[in-house]
Amino acid sequence: MFSIFPIQIHQVSGNTVSRKDDLLAVEAPLEIRLGFGKITNRQQKSIAVTMRTPGHDFELALGFLYSEGIIQEASQVHSIKYCTDLGRQESSENIVRVELKSEIEVNLSGLERNFYATSSCGICGKASIESIEKLGCPNIPIQNNLINHAVIFRLSKVLQEQQRVFQYTGGLHAAGLFDKNGDILLLREDVGRHNALDKLIGASRNSHNLALSDKIILVSGRLSFELVQKTIMAGVPVLVAIGAPSSLAVELAQQFGLTLIGFLKNEYFNVYSGIERIQVSPL
Amino acid sequence: MFSIFPIQIHQVSGNTVSRKDDLLAVEAPLEIRLGFGKITNRQQKSIAVTMRTPGHDFELALGFLYSEGIIQEASQVHSIKYCTDLGRQESSENIVRVELKSEIEVNLSGLERNFYATSSCGICGKASIESIEKLGCPNIPIQNNLINHAVIFRLSKVLQEQQRVFQYTGGLHAAGLFDKNGDILLLREDVGRHNALDKLIGASRNSHNLALSDKIILVSGRLSFELVQKTIMAGVPVLVAIGAPSSLAVELAQQFGLTLIGFLKNEYFNVYSGIERIQVSPL
Repeated sequence: MFSIFPIQIHQVSGNTVSRKDDLLAVEAPLEIRLGFGKITNRQQKSIAVTMRTPGHDFELALGFLYSEGIIQEASQVHSIKYCTDLGRQESSENIVRVELKSEIEVNLSGLERNFYATSSCGICGKASIESIEKLGCPNIPIQNNLINHAVIFRLSKVLQEQQRVFQYTGGLHAAGLFDKNGDILLLREDVGRHNALDKLIGASRNSHNLALSDKIILVSGRLSFELVQKTIMAGVPVLVAIGAPSSLAVELAQQFGLTLIGFLKNEYFNVYSGIERIQVSPL
Repeated sequence: MFSIFPIQIHQVSGNTVSRKDDLLAVEAPLEIRLGFGKITNRQQKSIAVTMRTPGHDFELALGFLYSEGIIQEASQVHSIKYCTDLGRQESSENIVRVELKSEIEVNLSGLERNFYATSSCGICGKASIESIEKLGCPNIPIQNNLINHAVIFRLSKVLQEQQRVFQYTGGLHAAGLFDKNGDILLLREDVGRHNALDKLIGASRNSHNLALSDKIILVSGRLSFELVQKTIMAGVPVLVAIGAPSSLAVELAQQFGLTLIGFLKNEYFNVYSGIERIQVSPL
């Protein structure tokens, strides 16, 4: 169980680039399985898979059961364990099985109706990345010095100027599409970061029919596995965020050759993957 | 299609409270349905429900299909429309139906395997709230002047001092449980805000067995419908966030009598629901 993952990154500050040790928050899938029913008719059901930071997984599973109204009291739970019957160390700590006492009545019909799906993943980080490979997505071609670092510096300022609703409510995430000169082409906003990105990709590939293989996407907030998946599937080579990436976001970006940039501030950013596309020299 | 929702809030600044007009980002569910297959064997399948801000819904649906590898080209889509066959205005704009051309082969087995569930909702804001009522959750009892406003001011400082991993990675959300004097009882962290809250609730109700009916939960970031649901189901009367709430988060809080506070800064916060629990007077 590790919630922090150490890596080496490139840090761009002003006109200089340097290597630096950094720490990432770990993101990995957790599947919650429920065992329930009378001893003569015992059932098991997978009720959720969520992308979480490992640690306090039993509490996460129990909190989820409370939140969904499946249990009301701690005394309804017989036991809670990691699944170790898969024979693979990497998987066993990503599956938690909650056994309810046999006398507890469970109605899962509400659960199924009330769940919604969002894109992801298998049951360990490796399976998550393999599942993207199975979608038939090619690696992104190498493009040395595609973008000058000073262009990246400009992005967040342009995004802030463009965001309309955000200024009023403070409650929306934004995703922007930029060309390699740093000019904004499209902007989409949503309460959900993944929705803002889907709207941006849907718009750029359909009504606007833009070639994406030399473009940049900038997102507000943090970088999850899911956002990297969407960017790779769209064929956009550079993804920039105002916030920090997760461990799995970086791993997926490295696997497919995506340039992943985080912590963008005025004259500063971190490069987690694909530094070769960034030309660090005064414009 | 409205992405901004106007409301009246209470603003607490220093030792004074005042009424103020405010704007919220709208959060509402969108269901994406896919029509596919040969003319002689046409099929329809609901492939996702996501909580989004209305607007650019067709782009969202198409971007989602690209991200999941279901389509590769705009030319594969025959049509995309809102479902208007439900006869209810409020629902029709929350369901989008994408019709693929009949010759397009679709393999949804990967889609089903690769989706994960997270808690929510029906198909319009009203249905979302009704689904929480069906979970058998009682309204939170009224408690006048439960907490002094100066206690709320202290919370974010305490949370910052307590967060360990966040300082290193910048990539984790936190959820903290506080007593009514503003002393921290528990802290949990995760890449996902909903996971941090589930961990906190699981911990407080099980291993720590805390009475929750006079406690406060503080979360980093923004307030979605989902976080309000979890807080209500746990029976915690006050939910505070550093960021902004969505429209549906406020609506659900009002329905169940939860005190909902956002935009917490040093000596400032907004109250969106349940002002009666907050005593605004110098300590």
